[in-house]
Amino acid sequence: MDEFEFIRRLRGKANRTGLPAQVLTGIGDDGTVIRPSPGKDLIVTTDLLIEDIDFRKKETPPDVLGHKALAVSLSDLAAMGSTPRWALTSLGVPKQVWNTEFLDRFYDGIFKLAERYQVKLIGGDTSRTPARIIVDTILIGECLEGKAVLRAGAKPGDLVYVTGELGAAAAGLRLLNRGADPTPAHSKEARDAAIERVMRRQLRPEPRVGWGLVLGEEHLATAMIDISDGLSSDLHHLCEECKVGATIDRAKIPIDEAVKILCGRRALDPLMLALHGGEDFELLFTVSPENASRLPKKVDGVNASCIGQIEPASSGVRLAEGSSVWELEALGFQHFKN
Amino acid sequence: MDEFEFIRRLRGKANRTGLPAQVLTGIGDDGTVIRPSPGKDLIVTTDLLIEDIDFRKKETPPDVLGHKALAVSLSDLAAMGSTPRWALTSLGVPKQVWNTEFLDRFYDGIFKLAERYQVKLIGGDTSRTPARIIVDTILIGECLEGKAVLRAGAKPGDLVYVTGELGAAAAGLRLLNRGADPTPAHSKEARDAAIERVMRRQLRPEPRVGWGLVLGEEHLATAMIDISDGLSSDLHHLCEECKVGATIDRAKIPIDEAVKILCGRRALDPLMLALHGGEDFELLFTVSPENASRLPKKVDGVNASCIGQIEPASSGVRLAEGSSVWELEALGFQHFKN
Repeated sequence: MDEFEFIRRLRGKANRTGLPAQVLTGIGDDGTVIRPSPGKDLIVTTDLLIEDIDFRKKETPPDVLGHKALAVSLSDLAAMGSTPRWALTSLGVPKQVWNTEFLDRFYDGIFKLAERYQVKLIGGDTSRTPARIIVDTILIGECLEGKAVLRAGAKPGDLVYVTGELGAAAAGLRLLNRGADPTPAHSKEARDAAIERVMRRQLRPEPRVGWGLVLGEEHLATAMIDISDGLSSDLHHLCEECKVGATIDRAKIPIDEAVKILCGRRALDPLMLALHGGEDFELLFTVSPENASRLPKKVDGVNASCIGQIEPASSGVRLAEGSSVWELEALGFQHFKN
Repeated sequence: MDEFEFIRRLRGKANRTGLPAQVLTGIGDDGTVIRPSPGKDLIVTTDLLIEDIDFRKKETPPDVLGHKALAVSLSDLAAMGSTPRWALTSLGVPKQVWNTEFLDRFYDGIFKLAERYQVKLIGGDTSRTPARIIVDTILIGECLEGKAVLRAGAKPGDLVYVTGELGAAAAGLRLLNRGADPTPAHSKEARDAAIERVMRRQLRPEPRVGWGLVLGEEHLATAMIDISDGLSSDLHHLCEECKVGATIDRAKIPIDEAVKILCGRRALDPLMLALHGGEDFELLFTVSPENASRLPKKVDGVNASCIGQIEPASSGVRLAEGSSVWELEALGFQHFKN
């Protein structure tokens, strides 16, 4: 059983008696939509980060960890098209970390990112751990009643978009793990700049809060998910929820330039990082053809690329290159592989 | 720095620009009160449980862990006088635990308790850990606008109450750690029943949801906190928030009968367990003298005892026995002692 099967099973159990009227979505989206009062919906999301699984202490300064902990939840709320409002942080640390500058710097990272989006830290919990740091971030956002963008909702014919560029976060992780490949085709300056960029994309992801808001408020996206596991896996998640297929055009996938510079062509294919790498925290969304012209060119300086279209479920999820079409497998990140 | 100093500092930082209108309480109460829309308030709380700190796997069956994870958060919401509604569970487990019956049984424990209070599991996160299980439970409740009961609000002259009996959860923990003391004064049957009771109080705490609702809806409690750290520490927390003192009458503290049976008088003083033991998850609350007669005798079969009264801050927090009065130190549980 992988974690996605697990989530399906849990959703079945949790929803076996049906969802109460106030719960619009249960388990299985980027966040959960509840409607405590008419007129406004709340979206809740939670994200665990575990030392030595999701980050390593030696390469993640405390403020960077704080930034990332909040950024991944901001990305989830962006993928629901909602405005982030309130955060809670549950933090477990070993005794030897407690009385150090870690705590102040960790919260500095949270506060700095929170202020940028006017998010308020309103609570949390602290605990000792026998070893290793763990962080659980809870984020609550809001949107007008019925305006949340779910993973479900795309129809055959809808266009598939992705914000920004892909592959750099995964390239950053590989740099951390293995160091850079020799790439004599590029200057030292170009390589240094590329290294700086992929490390930043890995360690300090920028959630696409502005894009999420535009897509939600203007009712432009028919379905949306953030790319945390990888384009291939997250496209599969979206298609499953929508009960559709999709065809992605290989030539249209926006691969980060820094990834192309750093990947020795024979050592590592930049396309593989862009397709399966994960942690880019870009938004993957679908738009009906008649609304495509209403999409903004850029939001907060970030553009969006049309990379394919939604098909009937029978087509499956596919990658097209010229006249060739292959099945696109979900090869992104999983915590528990079979 | 202990964790309470840490929370004070964090609260100062989080609130240095003031609380936005929608946040009624920030960090530092049992839960946080937000008002997304007029007419109704939401209360959010989160609780971390870490293996080998908050529980040991060998003596905590998975369903019992699920029960406890939700129960501690239900207790927080009860202490805010609110109705629990929606839960999210973040769960981190090592790979060797993943494909076992642990997951199903853990969620069985959650679902069973959730159904009793009509709480809906609406989301969460799962992650792998290198070792040890960690659980973070997020619970959202609601109440009518302005009806949440905070830790602050008690005034000198208010009476201090506690629900149920104290000390059994701590006695259960000591039984787990050290085994039972010889207590020849009691029959084997009485001792077996007492052991069963204190183990249940330690492993399967019963949140006082009904009492919390009555005290909140009827506006009976002027301040409230749940006893998770211990009566002495939690009374100190409440008095700090209210900027008052309190005097507790030793003779009126409801000590669990099972604790008296199990504590060899010279080995362990039942009163010490009742005062400082923690994890009883009873409610500690204050009531103005004119409202005392409106308190119900019992809620869900559990009574409440008047154990003392609120004094001016200058009196400090004290324990009275006959004509003697001592300072009552906060000797309850702390994750990070100085």
